[in-house]
Amino acid sequence: MAEPKNDLPAVIVLGNSSFLKLYGEQFSSKFKLLKPWESSLPLNQFITTHSQSVQAMLCSGGTRVTPSLLSQLPSLRVIVTTSAGLNHMDLDECRRLGISVANAGTIFSEDVADFAVGLLIDVLRKISAANRFVNNGLWPIHGDYPLASKVGGRKVGIVGLGSIGLEVAKRLEAFGCIISYQSRKKKPVHYPFYPDVHELATKCDVLVICCALTDQTRHLINKEVLLALGKEGIIVNIARGAIINEMELVQCLVQGEIAGAGLDVFENEPNVPEELLPLDNVVLSQHVAFLTEDSFQDLYELMSGNLEAFFLNKPLLSPVLDD
Amino acid sequence: MAEPKNDLPAVIVLGNSSFLKLYGEQFSSKFKLLKPWESSLPLNQFITTHSQSVQAMLCSGGTRVTPSLLSQLPSLRVIVTTSAGLNHMDLDECRRLGISVANAGTIFSEDVADFAVGLLIDVLRKISAANRFVNNGLWPIHGDYPLASKVGGRKVGIVGLGSIGLEVAKRLEAFGCIISYQSRKKKPVHYPFYPDVHELATKCDVLVICCALTDQTRHLINKEVLLALGKEGIIVNIARGAIINEMELVQCLVQGEIAGAGLDVFENEPNVPEELLPLDNVVLSQHVAFLTEDSFQDLYELMSGNLEAFFLNKPLLSPVLDD
Repeated sequence: MAEPKNDLPAVIVLGNSSFLKLYGEQFSSKFKLLKPWESSLPLNQFITTHSQSVQAMLCSGGTRVTPSLLSQLPSLRVIVTTSAGLNHMDLDECRRLGISVANAGTIFSEDVADFAVGLLIDVLRKISAANRFVNNGLWPIHGDYPLASKVGGRKVGIVGLGSIGLEVAKRLEAFGCIISYQSRKKKPVHYPFYPDVHELATKCDVLVICCALTDQTRHLINKEVLLALGKEGIIVNIARGAIINEMELVQCLVQGEIAGAGLDVFENEPNVPEELLPLDNVVLSQHVAFLTEDSFQDLYELMSGNLEAFFLNKPLLSPVLDD
Repeated sequence: MAEPKNDLPAVIVLGNSSFLKLYGEQFSSKFKLLKPWESSLPLNQFITTHSQSVQAMLCSGGTRVTPSLLSQLPSLRVIVTTSAGLNHMDLDECRRLGISVANAGTIFSEDVADFAVGLLIDVLRKISAANRFVNNGLWPIHGDYPLASKVGGRKVGIVGLGSIGLEVAKRLEAFGCIISYQSRKKKPVHYPFYPDVHELATKCDVLVICCALTDQTRHLINKEVLLALGKEGIIVNIARGAIINEMELVQCLVQGEIAGAGLDVFENEPNVPEELLPLDNVVLSQHVAFLTEDSFQDLYELMSGNLEAFFLNKPLLSPVLDD
């Protein structure tokens, strides 16, 4: 790895994500990356050392950007986060301090939508369960296997019809699913709109959670919504764990109040409720819906493009907050 | 269960499939089912007992319909099989003997296509592998996980563009895949056509096997085709195991000559090559791509409709061979 050149613009990096591990070297050819995990100093002292000079931060969805952290970096003018979601950041405080924020924009939307559809097909058609059945050598022993459910004809409610939700809808239409959605406001689409998620659940067989995690959406999917979805109902969550009341979801799954779930995100990652592990009607993954080689390359270009734009005093490529 | 009524038309049932277990009672209200497995007689003797009288047979894809079997049933005039594939039957001999054949037609096409797409997403996006990773409690321990591959942009070659292949193509187009196909003859579709499967493999990242198993397609997918598909290549097979040279496929997977596979069918079911079981890039299922509650209900109606049509001297609903 090349030595960091001192004349490169400095960027503090908080959160050593797999993306940064893979693309750190490429970033280092353009920026002087300040990496706390490579320093012998404790994090707070490392930050203090650079507090007066550093104008730019690169972080990931796992980095908590709090008022207290921001107060330690008074020169900070831009934060570039590798995540699409922004629930890890205090955006109000960034706005108040005049810090611009850029995120991954819609780079992950297709991949996340693909994964959501994959989880739904898996749960309905019992693919992971079948894979276990075969891998455990049960096929020659047990002739019978529980029947699966058809994908086509399912009434699928999309919770949050942003770029991910639209991609999910487009894909599921090709399978013959019947799409409707809940969102803050009606969108210019032909799918039926339900402003209330409980009402959406009563009309649907499947809910696919695609909205952002905000104060308004935290625990939006609770026991009442799950009971409205009903015993044949399936939940897919590729958004953020805390949009669902996880304890109530686990109860509903264990007690058969809903039929199954495909979950890529959890309230307390990397911890997954143990009760879900033995269930054949539940497919779990470790917050990887956005993770493909292809989108990582795009992400690198967008993230480094945002930082370059900042240092050249140009508009950010994927701004969430403008100056 | 009601006693079989003796005035109902007799149907010999060969092969006690899960479908017949579920719908046997409904059939019994319309037909006098002759079930060898409920008789104390050995199979051959059971058949001999009914050989002069029985005109109709209900069977499944696991029932070998050979000239020898047919010679034991000289009064047979119709065979109704619950399968879409016909590779278990000697159609030439049926034709020669003037026996009509009806099959499941296109009833399973959507379900099989859904499953094929599910397997492909699973392999590309590593869903079953992720599920194992989480279920084994590895998420809190290992931070890193291999990157997956994007579904969109993949060049997918459909081998056999019948009703299943067309449904696969329609679904994968919605994901942004680029479709081409191999088939006995060019079809009136906008996808590029390659008469030669080896050439198709050189042009594609993925092959989805959707053709019937015939003398012409047995081992159509061999080592040369797999090497042409290449190290990033993925095979999905929801058709019949023997369309692929399974030994050569296993070699290519174990040696990394192709990137992965999603397999619902095998050459020697219910036996699955043991070398495949530990591979994270392979997703296996037990010939269940067609199995949904919804299509079983449709199948019952089609099968009993075919038998009723036969006994009423009307045209079969889903004829493969006409009188």
